[in-house]
Amino acid sequence: MHKGLIVQKFGGSSVANVERIQNVAKRVVAYRRQGYDMVVVVSALGDTTDELVKLADQINAEPSEREMDMLLSTGEQISVALLAMAIHKLGLEAISFTGSQVGIITDTSHTRARIIKINVDKIKEELAKGKIVIVAGFQGVTLNQDITTLGRGGSDLTAVALAKELGADECEIYTDVEGIYTTDPRIESAARKLEAVTYDEMLEMASLGAQVMQARSIEVAKKFNVPIHVRSSFSDKTGTMIIKEVKRMEDVVVSGVTLNKSEAKITVCNVPDRPGAAAKIFKELSEAGVSVDMIVQNVSHLRQTDISFTVSKANLPRAAKLTQKIAKKINAGDVLQDEFIARISIVGVGMKSHPGVAAAMFDTLARHKINIEMISTSDISISCIIQKRFAETAVRSLHGKFGLAK
Amino acid sequence: MHKGLIVQKFGGSSVANVERIQNVAKRVVAYRRQGYDMVVVVSALGDTTDELVKLADQINAEPSEREMDMLLSTGEQISVALLAMAIHKLGLEAISFTGSQVGIITDTSHTRARIIKINVDKIKEELAKGKIVIVAGFQGVTLNQDITTLGRGGSDLTAVALAKELGADECEIYTDVEGIYTTDPRIESAARKLEAVTYDEMLEMASLGAQVMQARSIEVAKKFNVPIHVRSSFSDKTGTMIIKEVKRMEDVVVSGVTLNKSEAKITVCNVPDRPGAAAKIFKELSEAGVSVDMIVQNVSHLRQTDISFTVSKANLPRAAKLTQKIAKKINAGDVLQDEFIARISIVGVGMKSHPGVAAAMFDTLARHKINIEMISTSDISISCIIQKRFAETAVRSLHGKFGLAK
Repeated sequence: MHKGLIVQKFGGSSVANVERIQNVAKRVVAYRRQGYDMVVVVSALGDTTDELVKLADQINAEPSEREMDMLLSTGEQISVALLAMAIHKLGLEAISFTGSQVGIITDTSHTRARIIKINVDKIKEELAKGKIVIVAGFQGVTLNQDITTLGRGGSDLTAVALAKELGADECEIYTDVEGIYTTDPRIESAARKLEAVTYDEMLEMASLGAQVMQARSIEVAKKFNVPIHVRSSFSDKTGTMIIKEVKRMEDVVVSGVTLNKSEAKITVCNVPDRPGAAAKIFKELSEAGVSVDMIVQNVSHLRQTDISFTVSKANLPRAAKLTQKIAKKINAGDVLQDEFIARISIVGVGMKSHPGVAAAMFDTLARHKINIEMISTSDISISCIIQKRFAETAVRSLHGKFGLAK
Repeated sequence: MHKGLIVQKFGGSSVANVERIQNVAKRVVAYRRQGYDMVVVVSALGDTTDELVKLADQINAEPSEREMDMLLSTGEQISVALLAMAIHKLGLEAISFTGSQVGIITDTSHTRARIIKINVDKIKEELAKGKIVIVAGFQGVTLNQDITTLGRGGSDLTAVALAKELGADECEIYTDVEGIYTTDPRIESAARKLEAVTYDEMLEMASLGAQVMQARSIEVAKKFNVPIHVRSSFSDKTGTMIIKEVKRMEDVVVSGVTLNKSEAKITVCNVPDRPGAAAKIFKELSEAGVSVDMIVQNVSHLRQTDISFTVSKANLPRAAKLTQKIAKKINAGDVLQDEFIARISIVGVGMKSHPGVAAAMFDTLARHKINIEMISTSDISISCIIQKRFAETAVRSLHGKFGLAK
């Protein structure tokens, strides 16, 4: 009755309390009883990680990253032990492992380690005994036996990497939403859950503000062609598949509309139009650890040009101050900043073969009297910076225009 | 300026909150600054272990012991990481390890594992770099990489075993009392802190109700002659040394008086005086997992005898019921039980060479009109079961009689 292997990942909100842990156990047991081999990846219970971070902060505001990993990795270790106990209670065999025990070997970059290799022998051995294998997400171990953590979205990465290494038939990511939507349902009630999106679309959506999965795990899934099923741990409904290619009706051009309100815009006016001026700005920002997102430079007039770019709002004060210094050095003009902006994007692999999508987007925004301040495009997405107060109107109008509504 | 190696162990109450962790860090740093190589063993923060046990209990009242170890071992892992951060904050180098990382190899008896061997290479390596090494107490790892815990008093055992393996000059056990006293100061205010006791005396005291250290770690210390210093983490006062031989004035016969009120007495009347009758009682009790402590059988009259023994109060109902069944089977008479008893003991290596100590004890109790119900003796201790209501009087009178007061 062997049906295949499924890797399931449950986030912190899915195991936030005893009742939810029991629900996860029931779900896993139901799959196992259907005949699937089960590997389950779990995050730390609800707020555990935040509480540990707070505790550390009271002791040392700049804690050693190695010790931080030592501390935080306990969160998932607690989850896996409790889930194993909950499954035992339902009468099935289960065994829990830390990242270290299960052989998730990483580099030594504490708090943001990269997986080097996974030795899945131990997992296979326990699966062969008929056991449900539970693995602590988010963590690994260096060759020197130091505990590491994988950074934000690390548990997703654990699940995807295990699914790849074990040749799983599916990797299910359980979260608190029912899947990937055409846009944020809190903004546009007509938003529709997508049956499937491609890795590339999901990558664009992830980097453009959709909160469901981190870009990093999707990149790994794409690289190794691991089918992902994003779904809710609070319902039995099918979610959204993230896969290589999606068979859609010919005329699906845009798959989703995303909105990101966490950025701010900086403009350097009258930058002398000579080689190296722009480079100087972005080199110094990067050296100061300020990550720059969208950059737009227009053709120059009178040997001068304006350069605009976006940074995260949290970095705005520092970035603006630094940019003013650089502007002086390169004999540029004023430095303007604007934190009341939003980035609105449309994403879809269909764009590649459909001309006129950008024009349709700009036209739709214009019809709603929304001024576009910056534009940036990729193969499968178009992003515009607009004033924040128009953000919701922009989402709804584009969602309607590209036929995404239910 | 190398002064030697000290292993320090801090219990849960010594690291119960941020302030106490910081105090432990200060103490460790002060030693390191004096030139000592430092290895620090830490228990879980205050109530952490109890909270984890409660959480597990809500999920599965009979949790798998392997998963329980997985769960509970996180407590010490949190402590070591936080202590390392606190030491870093004071400007010294420190590195934390789990039992697994530091190579504390145990057998597979989860929740009460025994240490098989310790590979201290890693600790030596870090000490050689000048670092303070912090080790999670109470835990180890099997050869198969499963996490184990060492049972009650496990952190003391970790400290003593590491001190032995590293050839430490001293093993300091920090606790919430200032050392070993001639008797419980809450009962006899004239109780005196002992400068030193022998391993054997401490073993008697530990098994007879003194709460400071578990017998298990003292046995290991004795076996490998590891000098132990029991002292308070809340003061700088010298505590009590536990060592092989104590040089005392000739006339010190008794080192301490201990009291144990946690036992109950069962008497089987009129046991037929034939071979195997007593054996039958204790064999069946042992098979039922009831641990029996003191046993007294007197000479028989009319081919019948009474057998009395003590069990822990928690086991009394079960033990009494079982004993009644056995009594019937072997044609014995009534089974009596008494939970209002106390065991009062005097301990001292000096007894060996001083006759008359027992007589002095019995006489003292008689003078205070305290009836003795059972007597049991070892090389260096004499214990009497008396009625509980006389317990405090007995402690004080014996404490005075043997010259233990300040």
